[in-house]
Amino acid sequence: MSTTGERSLEMHEKNQGKIEVVSKVPVKTRDDLSIAYTPGVAEPCKQIAEEKELVYRYTAKGNLVAVVSDGTAVLGLGDIGPEASMPVMEGKAILFKCFANVDAFPICLDTKDPDEIVKTVAYLAPTFGGINLEDISAPRCFEIEEKLKKTLDIPVFHDDQHGTAIVTLAGTINALKVVKKEFKDCRFVITGAGAAGVAIAKLLLHIGVKDIFLVNREGIICEGQSHKNPYVAEMAQVTNREKRQGKLEDAFKGTDVYIGVSGPNMVTKEMIQQMNENAIVFAMANPTPEIMPEEAKAGGAVVIGTGRSDFPNQVNNVLAFPGVFRGALDVRASDINEEMKIASANAIASIIGDDERSPDYVIPDAFDLRVVERVTKAVSEAAVKTGVNRIPYTP
Amino acid sequence: MSTTGERSLEMHEKNQGKIEVVSKVPVKTRDDLSIAYTPGVAEPCKQIAEEKELVYRYTAKGNLVAVVSDGTAVLGLGDIGPEASMPVMEGKAILFKCFANVDAFPICLDTKDPDEIVKTVAYLAPTFGGINLEDISAPRCFEIEEKLKKTLDIPVFHDDQHGTAIVTLAGTINALKVVKKEFKDCRFVITGAGAAGVAIAKLLLHIGVKDIFLVNREGIICEGQSHKNPYVAEMAQVTNREKRQGKLEDAFKGTDVYIGVSGPNMVTKEMIQQMNENAIVFAMANPTPEIMPEEAKAGGAVVIGTGRSDFPNQVNNVLAFPGVFRGALDVRASDINEEMKIASANAIASIIGDDERSPDYVIPDAFDLRVVERVTKAVSEAAVKTGVNRIPYTP
Repeated sequence: MSTTGERSLEMHEKNQGKIEVVSKVPVKTRDDLSIAYTPGVAEPCKQIAEEKELVYRYTAKGNLVAVVSDGTAVLGLGDIGPEASMPVMEGKAILFKCFANVDAFPICLDTKDPDEIVKTVAYLAPTFGGINLEDISAPRCFEIEEKLKKTLDIPVFHDDQHGTAIVTLAGTINALKVVKKEFKDCRFVITGAGAAGVAIAKLLLHIGVKDIFLVNREGIICEGQSHKNPYVAEMAQVTNREKRQGKLEDAFKGTDVYIGVSGPNMVTKEMIQQMNENAIVFAMANPTPEIMPEEAKAGGAVVIGTGRSDFPNQVNNVLAFPGVFRGALDVRASDINEEMKIASANAIASIIGDDERSPDYVIPDAFDLRVVERVTKAVSEAAVKTGVNRIPYTP
Repeated sequence: MSTTGERSLEMHEKNQGKIEVVSKVPVKTRDDLSIAYTPGVAEPCKQIAEEKELVYRYTAKGNLVAVVSDGTAVLGLGDIGPEASMPVMEGKAILFKCFANVDAFPICLDTKDPDEIVKTVAYLAPTFGGINLEDISAPRCFEIEEKLKKTLDIPVFHDDQHGTAIVTLAGTINALKVVKKEFKDCRFVITGAGAAGVAIAKLLLHIGVKDIFLVNREGIICEGQSHKNPYVAEMAQVTNREKRQGKLEDAFKGTDVYIGVSGPNMVTKEMIQQMNENAIVFAMANPTPEIMPEEAKAGGAVVIGTGRSDFPNQVNNVLAFPGVFRGALDVRASDINEEMKIASANAIASIIGDDERSPDYVIPDAFDLRVVERVTKAVSEAAVKTGVNRIPYTP
């Protein structure tokens, strides 16, 4: 019996990768050729030249998403370069297609310079209806996404940030219902102040949680400390309002939800014991969580999720990004804003009914086909509500 | 009955463009997901990180071609911009797939700066096995292609130059057989010193024609004139060795083959009459040739070709580029060099047997399925012969 890694290698070699670019129209006769190519193709070209927005009517742009990476933070493997990131970007592309019929294409860039990445993606934008940034290391990912959002009129979404944040929020929505608490009364601990940690903190603050302790390698991030990283400095202004100082182990006392997006085995049963009653734990480091579910349970946690498919409550981005882009593309949204992300989280959470919800079931299964449909609708509607849609929503 | 343009518009709107990015592998179960995506996908990533060349084994790179344009010289429409060029680039992509099973993807760039285009394409290169430049205006196209060829270890091919040159050469090979002349004894007139004209002249010189008069708007290009365009200045050094000075009408006297890659109706019966006996005419301006076939015939031309499918001998690039890239990708060629282009031309010409060859049949039909196969083989073999292949050729 070969391992998953061995089977994956074999599959990748046999198929020479995973994506294929195919024609939606026949090219078998001279007439086909004259309609799909010259001379007929001059007509859509002319129309678009006169009115640029018609590119959405006559080309694939409106359904095309670039999966852009520089290969600097791939899975847990770190900076392995653009070529080595290709299997992940192709994988992402086929998930887009299989889950939401989005045509996604890997763009693995041979530069790590944030300004060059921004410029390159902006140059590529005419071809695409949306940009999914992937596996770009923090804090560069924040700068790149921010600048692209300002530059482009198509949605830009760094999935390692917002996909993770959306699904974590969805799990937390249901977990808090299980333990009968409300966001406004809850304190959170987040370990890891990288792409996911910062995005989760921002989304939680947006929906009005009581406080968040964001912990990085140096300890609890606190206003007044000197932070070289401007994104950490920014978070110090809005998290930890009680200005608690200390190390990792000092962060748990009096908190309700722990969210780990950091590294393996760094959290102990004793830390969880410091949390308030009915603690909630999402320990998402992969493949080894910050704390194993049985340990967290022993520490008093009631609802526990991880990033793994062999434990209950898997936080899996595939629950979010296909529907998020489908919903954004369907109304030609110019942005994916906080309201659209929160709408996605609520849509994912809503899959689990009041009578089904339990400590072991706060996040739907990755293959629950109702998810993408519900997320799509929620995102489209939120885009319309916030006025970032450029065409009406037609369910 | 609607026109070709109207039918094309309708088709493009109905299908929302022409390309689709699909998965070559199933993604229906949790197990599929763990092989195609995490955690299994980490294994090919790690392998490629250790040995970059394995990107060809485990990803789609080796079969992916970028169809890159900045929209500055689209069909006969001129500088219509990247969005408006998208229907052509999608069209090219589906021809690649349908004719040669090459997965091609449109990259329509929002910059006209040659250095920025070069840099952008170089950044994109990790994803692709080859670069097809398309509809980029002259003389910028020369500079961009030259620089990219120097920078990249994957083949770079500007189809408007070399695709046209290859098919024109193929037609000329057979036409000269029909009239029983040889390249080394022939003088050529080429009108149009843009992408196609310059590439055709260079390829003809490479195979040793006697002389070429290259004509642009100012007249016959001649050494000693001041040429602002460095590519025209370069051609002045190698064409027109008899240093003939004059206008368009002075170029035809004593020549054997006329090649038009310029504009409609600029050549007259009287000019053709100045040519040597058994004149050959390829008048490829589209949709209206430099001279209509019946006019050329009245002027004494024996073999006549155009760019149109409704006359005999259509010079159609689709006879070349699919097989050229298929052949280059199959041996992982680092370049598409002159020998590979000449091999393609000979392969295309060879489709027409001695007993079939006639004034009305010197170029095979665009849908002659033998062409791509024969071009592929010839290009792979020429790559091996010139040492630009990186894997052996296996027929």
